[in-house]
Amino acid sequence: MILHLNKLVNTDILNEIKKKYDAFHFSENEIEVVITSSSVKEVDTKFEKFVKEKFLFDSDIQLASLNYKQKREINIGGKIIGGNTNNCIIITGPCSVESEQQIEKVSKFISRLNIHTLRGGCYKPRTSPYTFQGMELDGLKLLKNAKNKYGFSIITEVRDSTHVNDVIEHADIIQIGAKAMYDHGILKACAKTKKTVMIKRGFGTTLQEFVQAAEFILSGGNPNVILCERGIRTFETKTRFTLDLCGVAYLKHHTNLPIIIDPSHALGYAYGIEDLSKACIAMGVDGLIIETHPNPSVAKSDAKQQLNFEQFEKLHKSISNIANAIGVNII
Amino acid sequence: MILHLNKLVNTDILNEIKKKYDAFHFSENEIEVVITSSSVKEVDTKFEKFVKEKFLFDSDIQLASLNYKQKREINIGGKIIGGNTNNCIIITGPCSVESEQQIEKVSKFISRLNIHTLRGGCYKPRTSPYTFQGMELDGLKLLKNAKNKYGFSIITEVRDSTHVNDVIEHADIIQIGAKAMYDHGILKACAKTKKTVMIKRGFGTTLQEFVQAAEFILSGGNPNVILCERGIRTFETKTRFTLDLCGVAYLKHHTNLPIIIDPSHALGYAYGIEDLSKACIAMGVDGLIIETHPNPSVAKSDAKQQLNFEQFEKLHKSISNIANAIGVNII
Amino acid sequence: MILHLNKLVNTDILNEIKKKYDAFHFSENEIEVVITSSSVKEVDTKFEKFVKEKFLFDSDIQLASLNYKQKREINIGGKIIGGNTNNCIIITGPCSVESEQQIEKVSKFISRLNIHTLRGGCYKPRTSPYTFQGMELDGLKLLKNAKNKYGFSIITEVRDSTHVNDVIEHADIIQIGAKAMYDHGILKACAKTKKTVMIKRGFGTTLQEFVQAAEFILSGGNPNVILCERGIRTFETKTRFTLDLCGVAYLKHHTNLPIIIDPSHALGYAYGIEDLSKACIAMGVDGLIIETHPNPSVAKSDAKQQLNFEQFEKLHKSISNIANAIGVNII
Amino acid sequence: MILHLNKLVNTDILNEIKKKYDAFHFSENEIEVVITSSSVKEVDTKFEKFVKEKFLFDSDIQLASLNYKQKREINIGGKIIGGNTNNCIIITGPCSVESEQQIEKVSKFISRLNIHTLRGGCYKPRTSPYTFQGMELDGLKLLKNAKNKYGFSIITEVRDSTHVNDVIEHADIIQIGAKAMYDHGILKACAKTKKTVMIKRGFGTTLQEFVQAAEFILSGGNPNVILCERGIRTFETKTRFTLDLCGVAYLKHHTNLPIIIDPSHALGYAYGIEDLSKACIAMGVDGLIIETHPNPSVAKSDAKQQLNFEQFEKLHKSISNIANAIGVNII
Repeated sequence: MILHLNKLVNTDILNEIKKKYDAFHFSENEIEVVITSSSVKEVDTKFEKFVKEKFLFDSDIQLASLNYKQKREINIGGKIIGGNTNNCIIITGPCSVESEQQIEKVSKFISRLNIHTLRGGCYKPRTSPYTFQGMELDGLKLLKNAKNKYGFSIITEVRDSTHVNDVIEHADIIQIGAKAMYDHGILKACAKTKKTVMIKRGFGTTLQEFVQAAEFILSGGNPNVILCERGIRTFETKTRFTLDLCGVAYLKHHTNLPIIIDPSHALGYAYGIEDLSKACIAMGVDGLIIETHPNPSVAKSDAKQQLNFEQFEKLHKSISNIANAIGVNII
Repeated sequence: MILHLNKLVNTDILNEIKKKYDAFHFSENEIEVVITSSSVKEVDTKFEKFVKEKFLFDSDIQLASLNYKQKREINIGGKIIGGNTNNCIIITGPCSVESEQQIEKVSKFISRLNIHTLRGGCYKPRTSPYTFQGMELDGLKLLKNAKNKYGFSIITEVRDSTHVNDVIEHADIIQIGAKAMYDHGILKACAKTKKTVMIKRGFGTTLQEFVQAAEFILSGGNPNVILCERGIRTFETKTRFTLDLCGVAYLKHHTNLPIIIDPSHALGYAYGIEDLSKACIAMGVDGLIIETHPNPSVAKSDAKQQLNFEQFEKLHKSISNIANAIGVNII
Repeated sequence: MILHLNKLVNTDILNEIKKKYDAFHFSENEIEVVITSSSVKEVDTKFEKFVKEKFLFDSDIQLASLNYKQKREINIGGKIIGGNTNNCIIITGPCSVESEQQIEKVSKFISRLNIHTLRGGCYKPRTSPYTFQGMELDGLKLLKNAKNKYGFSIITEVRDSTHVNDVIEHADIIQIGAKAMYDHGILKACAKTKKTVMIKRGFGTTLQEFVQAAEFILSGGNPNVILCERGIRTFETKTRFTLDLCGVAYLKHHTNLPIIIDPSHALGYAYGIEDLSKACIAMGVDGLIIETHPNPSVAKSDAKQQLNFEQFEKLHKSISNIANAIGVNII
Repeated sequence: MILHLNKLVNTDILNEIKKKYDAFHFSENEIEVVITSSSVKEVDTKFEKFVKEKFLFDSDIQLASLNYKQKREINIGGKIIGGNTNNCIIITGPCSVESEQQIEKVSKFISRLNIHTLRGGCYKPRTSPYTFQGMELDGLKLLKNAKNKYGFSIITEVRDSTHVNDVIEHADIIQIGAKAMYDHGILKACAKTKKTVMIKRGFGTTLQEFVQAAEFILSGGNPNVILCERGIRTFETKTRFTLDLCGVAYLKHHTNLPIIIDPSHALGYAYGIEDLSKACIAMGVDGLIIETHPNPSVAKSDAKQQLNFEQFEKLHKSISNIANAIGVNII
């Protein structure tokens, strides 16, 4: 249950309500927003006079529900996605930040294509200890330099809560990776900032759990949450994962959060990334995040799925063409 | 291994080769095509002089492989898909054939939209014995009447081998359903006809097994096979199945068979069928098969996922718009 | 809804009830059993006087439900499983019937171990056309010979409805394979006989659908149905399938059908079949079906998972030991 | 590749090797153990003289491989599992630590059954922010009190790296939960202690990734790692998860780590926990972890799957009976 209380509600009353219902609370505009478990269906009569509006839900998808509010607008470095913008943000860059030269090459390339948002992993959540684990803080600094030089927004992944504050400090969009999205330490830290957070769906995660991860952040008072579908793990092994566009259709029709899609991790091979990107654009998603590398064959991670510049440029033209046809603005 | 033998090869030699390698054989144009297990990598020296061309494969995806031949063209009632046509066939109609009036309403509607291919299930592969099982032969006759009146091609599903010959006789496209696609009785009957066969991927079926089902038909000498992706079963329960567009990307880049997509069964709900259809069109598939019903709420099967006429017409306009932008012809 | 009608109910009334509710019907002992969809919750007042007993269900698991009747006893060649017998039947033999010598070797071996039920596939539901497809009718005859010589009950798989009558004629237990279990042609043929039918769960099949396949047979009047769990398809690829013992626990506690487990197909490798068999016996299942071959390395199908005689004999001792400890009779 | 170097190897050489191969290193007994990526197959000739023994592997399952060393023994509060002990440890207690009284009741109960290892969650990795999140440090203290009073070993879950040091300090066995097992922050902290760590398999985690999580800890020099299978997420929804005993068979035959099974989370319902526990014991696992609560119906988490004392005592007798029959010692 979400309650909108009058701004003038007395602090003691507010605390009493929070305590009684074990509730979350934040202030937004002229409203005190109180959120209880969805199993709470009624508010005590003595509190009723403070309630301006009340929202009931079948499940703990509450603040993220389209029944609560219309699709949210999210500001990314001065560019807006979501709401009624019809904007689609293109995010690209290498799987891992590997060197200054690599980031410079990618930056120059995407800058030429008028792309404003650079990705690059610094803390890599590898499943083996015996592989490249990322440049960590040094990588963050390389991204920061690119941001300063080219005016990019930068997005990078937080792997665990030991370095979440470093990522919050340096990134414009904090990416919570598929393997970290249940991590309360990360979710709670992201709930306390106002920076934009992109949560990737775990490959074994239901849509219900995925949106509930967003509720951890929203209920702390940070409204700037984006969902990212990147493929789920199924029985099929010819492809790395299975991109769940049925799930994206569900999210579009039931939640108020913008949705970005990562076809690179889903397919795991460069050959079909353009096809999948065209599909996503046509479907009306709010963004794409695609891996590009100056020379994928020598990449320190995800070598098979990263596009070279020629492949990416071809993809970029294709999706721009479709975007034009359906009134979507590529940003 | 596929061998192309000289047309003039002696029958005794041909039989000797077939026997030695436990091989399949059919004649195509001026070639005798012999197919062995993919584990056979060499042909006996005494047969070599009869071999015009030899094709080796890593797995039993052979006749369907893009390494064997370029994308096949398939003729559906005078309309061609596949090859370099850039054609995309739209197939629609109700889940189940329910009555003459129902088929007449649908026929009139789709005819007005210039759609030429009507679907309708007569032998329903229901998982419970206590639900509607289809009109069977009476249903086939209603489809046949619609074909005669409106000039449609008709497609209907074969449920098991007891009625496969009835379906082969009456339908223009024989649909092998997701639950029947391992059925040797059906596959072998379809291998003996030249009618077009659309195989739906089982919801628990790997891409390898899916294409191998096509090999049963192709190796019997029927080259007219279409693949249909209709969603696989995963852990996600908010949607009925999970449409596997990564799998479709794989099939496009590795096989020579046209691909039709069924978003209706994948999602299981009407709300997102348009979104998914737009995605598929943009991706460049060879066709869409979508469930439409004059009044979905009273449908005898799949009530939640069938579109009403208004919804379908809106979808049809959307996909036509995208098709125009990318040079695809909706047929 | 299941209705037990008085044996003396007039045929016209019975037909009227069947027509009104689109119901199934069979006679059992002194009762007329009528089964409607589970969505039917009430019977018309004019029929009430004929109703001795009425059973309501949440889903179309009805005749198979433990809420309808206690665990069924099934007779297999004079040996009983199910009910309160605490019997556990051991079924073994090769994946495929390959030759007279092979069947003779296996028969002599299992006869020495006092095993009475021989398995062997004659119609192999291979997923590639380019592999061994089984000896078909010739194989059935070899099994029949072994039955006659050693007094075995024999079980073999029906692949599709083209040969279901041959299997019904020759086998003591008709096995409906994992890939054929939705096949209405087979299910309906099995509903008309009284022979015992073992349905294997499809690898993509839910427990609900699995038990509903049994309802097709039960509702036709054949009460002799056994369920067989043989592994479901999951994301894990180190093993061939994933044996679903949680599912078996569900079936034991919710249905009245005996359950046999096939660890061979689940794991797909010989090394752990003994471990899994011990687990199943301890759990209290009604039978095990395990693949054994005189020389697995040259087997024409499933070479990796078949046990040689030494391995099987060791397994047999281990499970007998556990069976003794928990009061289970190995038969 | 694992290298065993002579204890007397010069530190400079050791560092040179580590740097060249980006290797891990720890000292064990009289050996310097160096571990590189499994893709490294050869050691430079100049280092060869320092190498006593060399082990090559197909994948990054190295220190955990049965090809590296025989099954490890792990000491849990003076009791040993693994190796050739044939010991099976029983761990039980509530899902969540809820109050002093609750822990006291459970402690008295399990103490009477001669069980020495108490579980209880303090940091609950709930998927919704609007449910009970655990007593955190207060809960740890209640467990510590029970340990002091009853002489238990205690096991509790670490949810994220913000409190990993608290758990390491207070628990005898650190449980890394299914949702946290990719967390490098936790894995690295556990690699630095010598306390026993039990890693639960993520519900979307492959066996390869699962064992590689153990490699993070082992390669840091902590040899005390236990694997815990607790069910994977599949398409089946009648049960909460699917217990993967095929996977357990794989782990037993390919790794050197003891394996504990959690049937409670796998099934998600109390009714079949005894059946599954019997199966696991018979299969020869190294331990069971089962949820027990004084009054499951009022439990703050996992109410459906926790056993009451009567159910647990019945289970305990059943498994003891099977254990006796097969020479396993319940500890």
